[in-house]
Amino acid sequence: MASEFDLIARYFTRAAPAGLLGVGDDCALFSVPPGEQVATSTDLLLEGRHFFSDVDPTALGHKALAVNLSDLAAMGARPLGCVLGLALPRVDEPWLAAFAQGFHALADAHGCPLIGGDTTRSAHDLAISVTVFGAVKADQAFLRSAARAGDDIWVSGELGAADLAYRLLDGQYPADPQRLAATRGALERPEPQVALGLALRGIAHAAIDISDGLLQDLGHVLAASSAGATLRYADMPVAAALAGLAEAPLRRAVLGGGDVYQLCFTAPAERREAVLAAARAASARVTRVGEIRAEPGLVVLDAGGRPMAELPRGFDHFPAA
Amino acid sequence: MASEFDLIARYFTRAAPAGLLGVGDDCALFSVPPGEQVATSTDLLLEGRHFFSDVDPTALGHKALAVNLSDLAAMGARPLGCVLGLALPRVDEPWLAAFAQGFHALADAHGCPLIGGDTTRSAHDLAISVTVFGAVKADQAFLRSAARAGDDIWVSGELGAADLAYRLLDGQYPADPQRLAATRGALERPEPQVALGLALRGIAHAAIDISDGLLQDLGHVLAASSAGATLRYADMPVAAALAGLAEAPLRRAVLGGGDVYQLCFTAPAERREAVLAAARAASARVTRVGEIRAEPGLVVLDAGGRPMAELPRGFDHFPAA
Repeated sequence: MASEFDLIARYFTRAAPAGLLGVGDDCALFSVPPGEQVATSTDLLLEGRHFFSDVDPTALGHKALAVNLSDLAAMGARPLGCVLGLALPRVDEPWLAAFAQGFHALADAHGCPLIGGDTTRSAHDLAISVTVFGAVKADQAFLRSAARAGDDIWVSGELGAADLAYRLLDGQYPADPQRLAATRGALERPEPQVALGLALRGIAHAAIDISDGLLQDLGHVLAASSAGATLRYADMPVAAALAGLAEAPLRRAVLGGGDVYQLCFTAPAERREAVLAAARAASARVTRVGEIRAEPGLVVLDAGGRPMAELPRGFDHFPAA
Repeated sequence: MASEFDLIARYFTRAAPAGLLGVGDDCALFSVPPGEQVATSTDLLLEGRHFFSDVDPTALGHKALAVNLSDLAAMGARPLGCVLGLALPRVDEPWLAAFAQGFHALADAHGCPLIGGDTTRSAHDLAISVTVFGAVKADQAFLRSAARAGDDIWVSGELGAADLAYRLLDGQYPADPQRLAATRGALERPEPQVALGLALRGIAHAAIDISDGLLQDLGHVLAASSAGATLRYADMPVAAALAGLAEAPLRRAVLGGGDVYQLCFTAPAERREAVLAAARAASARVTRVGEIRAEPGLVVLDAGGRPMAELPRGFDHFPAA
């Protein structure tokens, strides 16, 4: 059995890119281009809470970084690097190798090298903390407070697949191997919309990534912007694998389903062509799903234009008693 | 019972200092002075592994940040801010309030505001991840690889108290309330040597913080610098509370005891006066305990000048089988 330091060295130390000091000193060092700020986000992922114990470790390594890159995307920030904390209940080298492979592959794809970390033993559960760093010009970051009345509301990608996969894996729905196969990738290997975030700089106003469900995440934008919104349910980009679901689970997946890691963003109506051009440049799909209003409140209109009465809540780690 | 977002808002959101965007957006934003790099370090602390379940939460909030500030100190970096991930097995508001108070008090003392975070529920254990950011001029950072043959080896503060407190609390030694009272502060409320790190810029060569024990941490410096060292055991700054301990536990505490969060650093022999002046400016105690040698190997001389045969190993989360 290897020592802690051997383990770190074997799976997580790689040559640091020029200008960075990587794993193996008290701190990692990185540079920030003149005139840019550092954007940073941290997530703590726990076995049994954020992922199933038997999840594929390569997918888990991917997702642990993806959820943080998604936060950079939602600020319009360019990735610079990341640090990883890993608490392991046991030393399982094949597991570590697969986790590291998934993590590094996504890091490489986004130019976001692992530059520091901390590995320790846990008593019970696997715990993963990732902190990412990106660079953004101060006046170009998408703030939650920047939505303006009259802005279009856009969503990237598709909605609902991760929620359906989660409920199938959790046994909340009867086994359905075909639907699970069609949705599992959305849950376990989300693709952070970093390129779209960068392409939308100077075009979008507010942005947020859909981690807790569209309604809850958009609600944060509305609260920060002191604004309201109208959404059109019929315009939502619903994942094809949800076809044929009953109305209640469908609505819950589309409007309330978390773990999406697509962007919800607002942009002036006169920039619609620019939004579409940015999405094309980033090879992303974007769909216009509503508008920001000055009056507070979040209204979802059904296909007939009537406000929907029962709306799902988003995911909350500490639900009210 | 409050929602996750209420909890975060109540205990961890504070007005962000000028130039920073704090808790409440996808990312926190901070600026770095021109010509300086970002130094960053992350630690993942787990209940039962890094702290006892019944530890005073104010002390725990202090220590969770202190161990990271200590890494900035060991690079000679000035704190800029930090992010916190917190996984809680239950919502305990008095506990949260006390933890936040200990955390914020140390953050305030070092100008290191909490600018982002993630709070979640854990299945079993409390887990705390902290990532700190500091600023340092690229050519002034103390690297582990920078020790040179002929350098003096210095240690700040005192050695051994945290190890003794840990073993008393863990029941490895018979109860001794007086010794515990004299050593517990060193274990539970270490004071990171940030001011000393800053004062030593341009003077010290290599530095490391003593988290895993003097011999193990100095060993990392020697490996990175391709050098060896001679230490003089009789010169070690032993904590007064260790007086009267038997030789074996004393040696283990002084040379192998972790959780010290003092600095071990090297500096040219001709800069001794500058080192002492820097320590005075930082109100820190520093003690010269040995020299860097070109030949590899780490030798500790006893009071009679003979190499000590049995040396304790440092702390390792994954001890060899």
